[in-house]
Parts: sequence; structure tokens; C-alpha cells
Amino acid sequence: MVARTAFFSIIIIGDELLTGSKVDSNSTFISAKLAEIGVDVKTIMTVGDDEKEIIDALGFCVTRSDGVIVSGGLGPTSDDKTKDAICKFVEVNMVEHKEILDDIKQRFSKRGVDMPEPNKEQAYQPEGAILFRNPVGTAYGFEVYKDEKPIIALPGVPAEMKAIMVESVIPSLKEKGFGLSDLHILDAKVVGLAESAVYDAVGPLREWAEKRESICLAYYPHFVDVTVRVKVRGEEEFAEKMFKEAKSILEDILGEKLYGYGEDGLEIVVGKLLRQNGMTISTAESCTGGLVSNRIVSVPGASDYFLGGVVAYSNEAKSNLLGVSEKTLSTFGAVSPETAEEMALGVRKKFASNIAVSTTGIAGPTGGTAEKPVGLVYIGWSYDNELGSKKLMLGEMTRDRVRLYTSQMALDVTRRILSGMSLE
Amino acid sequence: MVARTAFFSIIIIGDELLTGSKVDSNSTFISAKLAEIGVDVKTIMTVGDDEKEIIDALGFCVTRSDGVIVSGGLGPTSDDKTKDAICKFVEVNMVEHKEILDDIKQRFSKRGVDMPEPNKEQAYQPEGAILFRNPVGTAYGFEVYKDEKPIIALPGVPAEMKAIMVESVIPSLKEKGFGLSDLHILDAKVVGLAESAVYDAVGPLREWAEKRESICLAYYPHFVDVTVRVKVRGEEEFAEKMFKEAKSILEDILGEKLYGYGEDGLEIVVGKLLRQNGMTISTAESCTGGLVSNRIVSVPGASDYFLGGVVAYSNEAKSNLLGVSEKTLSTFGAVSPETAEEMALGVRKKFASNIAVSTTGIAGPTGGTAEKPVGLVYIGWSYDNELGSKKLMLGEMTRDRVRLYTSQMALDVTRRILSGMSLE
Repeated sequence: MVARTAFFSIIIIGDELLTGSKVDSNSTFISAKLAEIGVDVKTIMTVGDDEKEIIDALGFCVTRSDGVIVSGGLGPTSDDKTKDAICKFVEVNMVEHKEILDDIKQRFSKRGVDMPEPNKEQAYQPEGAILFRNPVGTAYGFEVYKDEKPIIALPGVPAEMKAIMVESVIPSLKEKGFGLSDLHILDAKVVGLAESAVYDAVGPLREWAEKRESICLAYYPHFVDVTVRVKVRGEEEFAEKMFKEAKSILEDILGEKLYGYGEDGLEIVVGKLLRQNGMTISTAESCTGGLVSNRIVSVPGASDYFLGGVVAYSNEAKSNLLGVSEKTLSTFGAVSPETAEEMALGVRKKFASNIAVSTTGIAGPTGGTAEKPVGLVYIGWSYDNELGSKKLMLGEMTRDRVRLYTSQMALDVTRRILSGMSLE
Repeated sequence: MVARTAFFSIIIIGDELLTGSKVDSNSTFISAKLAEIGVDVKTIMTVGDDEKEIIDALGFCVTRSDGVIVSGGLGPTSDDKTKDAICKFVEVNMVEHKEILDDIKQRFSKRGVDMPEPNKEQAYQPEGAILFRNPVGTAYGFEVYKDEKPIIALPGVPAEMKAIMVESVIPSLKEKGFGLSDLHILDAKVVGLAESAVYDAVGPLREWAEKRESICLAYYPHFVDVTVRVKVRGEEEFAEKMFKEAKSILEDILGEKLYGYGEDGLEIVVGKLLRQNGMTISTAESCTGGLVSNRIVSVPGASDYFLGGVVAYSNEAKSNLLGVSEKTLSTFGAVSPETAEEMALGVRKKFASNIAVSTTGIAGPTGGTAEKPVGLVYIGWSYDNELGSKKLMLGEMTRDRVRLYTSQMALDVTRRILSGMSLE
């Protein structure tokens, strides 16, 4: 039992992560889930499928942490060394678990196939281990102990790791008293302010938190938004009271830049608002090239409110498909508030949607002029009887970032329209 | 001097990487660059901005590797502990480097601002260190030694880390004899085959390689394609001869599934083919929601060949904007070869492009029927006098993966058209 914040380490196993061919996001997911229950991560290590390497990493991590989560190398092939390494490290033998064998056989027979011979191996697990059933695959997770510290092994396939982590590992850690059982979390999501600006803005919330021993704050900056996390320790009722106070302070200082609470990204928030309002949307994109519509469509069920979009990359497309007048294009240019607005109006008519947003800009790295530099972007909108546009100057960003940031601002314009907020 | 393959370790520093708020891709880039010169990575560690943690990680890595690359924590604020930790670890003092101070001052004065006070600190570097100028920022990289092994420190900002890595670190490591100076690499890129299928297919290449001591193969599987790497050791001329043989074998066995050599992804290869052929393209997307056009536009200069696209998510959009006949929609449904083909034909007319590709399918997780299950996708195309479509069954994939895989197949159809290949 740990009466303080627990520190865990994470070991990610896989040769493909050491050759630069794959980014590890499993450790990110595990860290985020641990943070939610008040378990901090001390070290993340990545090593190859090699028994000695895994044992060395376990040794390093166990002495420095209250527990270790290992992910990867639990497959049925001989490349997978994790189980053997952990057994050696904790000095236990592997034994066959009849119930796992039956379970795996049944899974294959349900799919109408015989269990392949190598999968038999997956029924072997460390003696005395706590087993975690894999709801989406045949590799079980398990937990053993070294110096009374838990070593938890999970598969490396992200969907399998995530399922076992959420369904078994987190509840089991909480039950064993790891983390902070009285921890409550409020995530406030902020759009349109850089990390340092958010930090400066939430000074009053920090003062409020500093006066209270049971409350602390954390900041999670992403490129397109920033999460301010309020962590409260105590009874549920107390936490709810504190969250109410925190929300009131946050809403006062951040106003319309606070776009929601919880896990939802802006595309999900916008989707919910469209659904609630019974409204439909269409998009007209130039520099974002389909990124705005792609983000809207990434949300399951988007067909209920997204009618479609036009990616009008050339001037001809802007006039032929969206009805931007040739005079507008020749007088003001493709990257102008006038063009942005006519694009939004044009696409809204085409799709007969309630709302339309548009993007036009110079994403770079070339194509800029002194008058219209790389990073100059206009976002346009049309709804009701209103037509408007907004200028962004994103000159310091790379092409990819100009496009991503623009897509976020287009979604934010939509949120503001749907929430009856100012559009600046 | 290391006459064998050198093993390096990588230490990534930053609190934000331990809370699950950010994925580390710096270590992926560093690993890939090291692999190209024949330096293998043994361990990747991520630790917080904490002197003791950094020193412990250095201790672990130095004993197990021929060198260590550290990234992160070189900023001018007090949160950044990397320089202090490394100085303690290698037992040297920090000294002010007048030439760095002048350089930083000049950078600020070029932008018309005075150097902020905290940046002065960046002129302090470990005594005797080899310094690596940062072409895009003010944090210098440096190299010091522990037990005659290099410890190289780089900033954590990806653009800065990448610039110093490519411009200074890799040439310096090669000069010092790390890695394999006689290593030559050929990357063959394969689309439309899973990793295991690629592995099975390239059996003859493996046999060819196994007969030659100076040649070995590696496989880099990604979700949308697989890279087969041929590594040859020897003189340049010998390597070129071997690559010619390898290419001939690969082209024999993989045929049209081999989409290129080198670093370029499919969107870049397609862009180059369009440019070479002086052709233009437009896209009509349903289930991919703009992902195909977004990938085309992600390539700088895409405006030379990409005219635009229509995201037709609703049936009304498919008929009103793309001219898909209502009879087709009612007889065959939105997810059908007939609709895919009419979408492609319609968008090609709209944009007057040489080529058009289309996507329509059920990305899930809901919306499937017994007859048309989740994961059923059609890709359509129109060019010259040809009109066609192709069916994909992606039932085992998640929504995001159905959409990503479909976008890859749409790009591959375009490549095949432009290369005069079969479309199956």
C-alpha cells in the first residue's frame, strides 16, 4: 500500500521502435491513464526484443519506482521475449493455464478455424501471476511481483493494450491503493491561446488553488489547444464544490476561449453542438485542402450534420464551383477576406447547409510575397444572414502547422457561431 | 574508433512526455538517422527535467552503449536541467563562450529586438565541449565525453534538433568512425501488401542476400506501406552493382506493388508523376471525408497539379454536386461500384482535370448491414476514356484505419494510372 503519490515506470519492448520506423504512442496512453488516477510516471524506457536488455531495464525501473508496466513482446512467436525475461527477473517458472488454452481455442473455433500451433504457447504464463483477459486478442496480460512491487505486462498491439489497461489494470491498481483514491480531475480545454498565454491568464485560478492544500493544477499544452487540469483531493461532494468554483473562475478569465471540459477535442464539441442545434454544415477549403472536412468526418456519426465540402485549390475551382466572382479574385486575390467570404457563401448555397466555413491562405514554404507573406490565412463563414471573415498571421509556422492551426480556427469559428459567441 | 556496428542510446528529457500529453517523435527521428549510417540504438529513455533523473539515465546508458544522444532541456529557463546534469555527470564546469553570446545577440538584433536577459545563460556551455551551432534557434548543441564515449546534447524543439542532427551530428559521428563508413542503403517501398506478405514475397531476395556476407536486409512495416531495406557494405561501385541486382529481383517479385525507392511517401510519388506527365487531378470523397485531398495538398507545390475536390458526404451532395444519378443511388446505393464511378466521372467534369479518383464506403463503427458490412469501400477512377472501380473489404479495421487505408489505395490507383499499370 502506498499512501503517497505512486511513481511507476513504463518499459516498451520492440525492435521496430529502435530503428526509427515507428513512433511509440503506447507509453503516452499508459502515462495519461496513470495520471488520471494520480500515479506519476518516472521513466519510460524502450528496449529491443532481447532477454538481457529487458531484464536490465526491469532492474533499473524497479529500484526507482513503485511499479512497472511493460508493453510488447507477448505474441506467440519466438521473437517475443517479454514473458521469459520477466519470469527470470522475478524468479518464477512458466506454467500452462488450462483455462487460457480453452479460451484461446474457443476464440479460434468461433471464427471457424483451428487454433494454430504457436498460439498454444500463449497459455503458458508465470506461476502465481494475476491474469488479465484480453477482450480483443489472444495475448493475456499479467501481473507478478518483485520486491513487493507489481510488474504488469501488456501486449504491444495498441487496441489490446488499451482494452486491458482500461478494463483491468487501472481498476486493479486503484483497488490495491496505488494512486490517490480521493483524486478528482477537471480538464478545462482552451483554444486560441498559446501555452504561455494560458499560464499567464489563469493566474487567479493559481492563486485560488495555492490557498487550498488539497488542490493543484497542471498544464497540458498541445499544438492546437491547451488543457488546464484541476486536481482536487477529498470527498466527491467537496470536489464537486471545488470544480464549481474553478469553473466559475475559468469562465471569468478565459471567457469564450474555454471550449469545454473533459476529453473531447474541438471536432467532437462542434459535432455535438451541430447535433444539439439540429444544424448542418459544409466546408470550402483552399490551403487546408480537406483537413477541416476530414476532422469533422473523423467523428463517428458525422453524416448526421456534415453535408460535404469543396476543396477549391485553383482559382478556376473557386469561381466555377463556389461562385467566387472573377472580379473578386482579380481585385483582391485568392487570399483575401473577400474571397474567403464568397467561398463560404458559395459552398453554403451548394449544399444548402445552415452553416459554412472556408479557408484560404499561403501555407508555404513558397508562394509568399511582401504584401501577402507565407502564413497569411483568411477564414470565412456564412450562416443566417451573416457573412464574415477573420485574418490569421502564421508566418513562423511550418506548412503542416499552418494547415493544422487553420483547421482548428475554422472549427473554432463554427463553435462560436453555434454558441452565439463573438467572432472577433 | 569503433570497428564494429556502434550502439548508441537516446535520452529524451521533458516532464510533458511523462504525463501522457505529448508523443515523443524526436527519438524516432534520431534513431532513423543513426540507422542510416549503421549506428544501432540500444535503449531509448524518457525522463523528466530533473538533475538526478538525468544523471541516473546517463549512467545507465553510458555503460551499455558506445555513445549517448540527449534531446531536450536546453532552453534558457530554470526548468531546463540538461546542461547542469551532463556537466556533473562528466565532471566539467560550465564556462561562458563569448562567440555564442555574440551570435545570440546578433540573432535578436536582426529581428530588431534586444536579447532577453535569460538568453545570456545560453552562452554558458560545458568547458571543452565541441559546440554545434543551431541554424534555427538559440540553443546550441554540444558534445562532451565520459569514459571516452561521446555524450551529445541537442535541443528538444523538433526543427532545431533535426537541423543540428543532420548538419552537425551525423557528419561528426561519421568522421569519428562511428557507424559503418562503407554502409550503403537501398529502401524499396511496397504498397498493398501486409508485412507478413512482403516478408513471404521477398524470399528470393533473402536467399540472394544470405549468399553474400556483405549484404543484409531489414523490414520496416508501417500501416499503409512496408519498406524493405537492403544494406550493403563495401565500395560505392560494388554497392551500386548489388543495388542493381536487388532492384531487378525486387521488381520481378513485387512487380507493380513496388512503388518506389528512397524516402518519398505515396503522396510525393504521385505528385512527382503528375508533374512529370503534366497532368492534373481532382478528387471526390465520401468516407475519406477529405483525407485524400489533404494528403495530396500536404506536399509543397501541389497547386501545380491538384485542382480541387468535392467531399460529398450526403446522397444529395453526390447527386447535386457530382451528378451521380438518383437512379444509381436508389438502385445500387451510395456504397457501390456504380456510385464510385459516377462520382469520379462527375468530379473530373467539374474540375476539368485529367484524372479523378473517388471513395465511398462504410467506415464504421456503425452503419453496416449484412449485405454491406462496415469496412466495405469502393474506389472509383476516371481518366481518358476509362472509368473503373475497385472493391476493398476492411472489416477488421477501426474507423480511422479504414479511412487511412482507403486514402492510400486511392493514391495507389492514381499511381497505377499514371504509370500505365493494371488497375486489377
